[in-house]
Amino acid sequence: MRIITLTTDFGTRDGYVAQMKGVILGIHPNATIIDATHDLEPFRVLEAAFVIRGIADHFPRGTIHVAVVDPGVGTERRGIVLQCGGSLFVGPDNGVFSFLLGDIVGNIREITNHDLMRGQVHPTFHGRDLFAPVAAHLSLGTDPADVGRVVADPVILAIPPVRTTPGGLEGEVIHVDRFGNLCTNIESGMLERTEATVVVGENAISGIARYFGEVPGGALLALVNSFGFLEIAVNRGNAAAALGLGVHAAVTVNWT
Amino acid sequence: MRIITLTTDFGTRDGYVAQMKGVILGIHPNATIIDATHDLEPFRVLEAAFVIRGIADHFPRGTIHVAVVDPGVGTERRGIVLQCGGSLFVGPDNGVFSFLLGDIVGNIREITNHDLMRGQVHPTFHGRDLFAPVAAHLSLGTDPADVGRVVADPVILAIPPVRTTPGGLEGEVIHVDRFGNLCTNIESGMLERTEATVVVGENAISGIARYFGEVPGGALLALVNSFGFLEIAVNRGNAAAALGLGVHAAVTVNWT
Amino acid sequence: MRIITLTTDFGTRDGYVAQMKGVILGIHPNATIIDATHDLEPFRVLEAAFVIRGIADHFPRGTIHVAVVDPGVGTERRGIVLQCGGSLFVGPDNGVFSFLLGDIVGNIREITNHDLMRGQVHPTFHGRDLFAPVAAHLSLGTDPADVGRVVADPVILAIPPVRTTPGGLEGEVIHVDRFGNLCTNIESGMLERTEATVVVGENAISGIARYFGEVPGGALLALVNSFGFLEIAVNRGNAAAALGLGVHAAVTVNWT
Repeated sequence: MRIITLTTDFGTRDGYVAQMKGVILGIHPNATIIDATHDLEPFRVLEAAFVIRGIADHFPRGTIHVAVVDPGVGTERRGIVLQCGGSLFVGPDNGVFSFLLGDIVGNIREITNHDLMRGQVHPTFHGRDLFAPVAAHLSLGTDPADVGRVVADPVILAIPPVRTTPGGLEGEVIHVDRFGNLCTNIESGMLERTEATVVVGENAISGIARYFGEVPGGALLALVNSFGFLEIAVNRGNAAAALGLGVHAAVTVNWT
Repeated sequence: MRIITLTTDFGTRDGYVAQMKGVILGIHPNATIIDATHDLEPFRVLEAAFVIRGIADHFPRGTIHVAVVDPGVGTERRGIVLQCGGSLFVGPDNGVFSFLLGDIVGNIREITNHDLMRGQVHPTFHGRDLFAPVAAHLSLGTDPADVGRVVADPVILAIPPVRTTPGGLEGEVIHVDRFGNLCTNIESGMLERTEATVVVGENAISGIARYFGEVPGGALLALVNSFGFLEIAVNRGNAAAALGLGVHAAVTVNWT
Repeated sequence: MRIITLTTDFGTRDGYVAQMKGVILGIHPNATIIDATHDLEPFRVLEAAFVIRGIADHFPRGTIHVAVVDPGVGTERRGIVLQCGGSLFVGPDNGVFSFLLGDIVGNIREITNHDLMRGQVHPTFHGRDLFAPVAAHLSLGTDPADVGRVVADPVILAIPPVRTTPGGLEGEVIHVDRFGNLCTNIESGMLERTEATVVVGENAISGIARYFGEVPGGALLALVNSFGFLEIAVNRGNAAAALGLGVHAAVTVNWT
């Protein structure tokens, strides 16, 4: 348990993330710290949940994932440690781990053990003074059971559900990535077949492609992305900009 | 002494920081290199000084902090190594370490030992050819006394002073962070009590809060931030954008 | 062989790079992973080639450089491993290593060995499922000859040539860095002497400087940059913005 990933909305300009890393290295000098992202839109908990879900499967068992998108810092909202799939997740109990939820019931604990925190916990920076030191201690082998009592009622964000219709599926865009690809909430397992028309805005896309280069540069396509979700993209282009669409845009799949 | 932090205005696009890391790893393959920030506005030495001050206390003793915001690179400005609080600081003598200054008098040396630099020092990239290798050698145990002679007259930037008035304090904004929080030069030790009205622009804020969530979303508040300075913020919002204010804006505290 | 650098256009927002790092650490837990850049403009292969050239010389022998700017991912374009100057380079065969080309003929292999890839290679994310695991295996000592057969006809991008004229040189801008410095394709070795007039847009610059501070703040200058190319800059300013020029702008050197 040496790898600690960090997912925040802190940006990289002000040194906040470095403060967290300093605290971790002060406790566990040999920790391997990996930046997942610090460029999330401030306070967008669901975006953080999406990134956490995307990275969790690709790290070795025993990795400790810290997520600090935390608009409620300092209030009564709890800090938690989750065990899920052989890895640990540390962060606020605000739904940031919602995408993992199927697996985590019964493996959540509230962080109340002050021995695992910094001596003074500043009420606006639990990332540095609470979550970072807890993660560092866990990486040294502290038993997750030592952080605090079991939490039975974690906060769960409503992830927009996909509706099944007689002729297909109705979903929506839940994430727009750096390339402007529109990631929907429709998982690959829901796609019975690739013979389908995908409708987004005023556009109808025939068939579900496997990779971008199946259509000419600048053309619209639908494909299953590397996260396992249906995605609308433009080959060598930016679908969000081309279509003027973003999060919450409706995406319909009609079997053909 | 294995941890080396890097604070620059180089951005992350062009590979300049990676060149520095390659040089460090070539000298000390087991160095742990931590990015403090590379996203400072170009040439803003005071911003770098602020970040350096923020991170220095949170890293273990023996950490080596390298700061390269260096508009004078290639000129007669000196390169220096400071010892302060059990850690070392490496960078140009342009005031980038001004915020540490209380403690460093007498522990500053000019970098003149060519054995600690790269064979060829490019006159526009001392970060790579001079500061990075010096930091790497220091991390391997080189005595700071070996870098060069003592510097008695380091460059010190004028940090705007706080004025004490009969009824309170007059300060100003010295840093705007990624969330739009307005950090002032008023340190927490100057705040005799939290019963005060904080005036910024045309707004009067009653009392000094402890965390953002003490006021409703969108509301203005004043609090002591995690750096230990008085800060103006908007809960779940962006104070700089909401108020149209930035660095140098006046902030007044009136005891009530 | 423990150091692996990453050069991509993935940005840092969505966790794509972290997924690659998780895969690498799953194979080689002690790998040292260095971000070269993830902020290249999407699909700009030549920019990536420029960054790779810039960093390659500054890392220790045995470093493995991974470049994933890969608009053709999923198509028939090959993945390759190059040996060059004691280091290895892993990425798509789309010209991203063009700047190294003088040295690499005969040392290029196509990646076809599935034992070195992830079990399932997603057709849109070879960075994670193919290039990252190949790099990790190489860092553990896998023989480059094991990745696949020799490639005799790698894709080479046309790097704009410099023209020699009776009175000087005609080149062009090939990279604009984060400071707005205009890097040309004119290498320092072509500059017979520093007594020259450098013409860019409607400006004539007398002489070739060594560092920015040789001219007053805000003034235009020409100098040899730390990559070894002629560059147009503004001291403490942004030449690209000041001149309204960018990639492909003509730059002429007239000997005086």
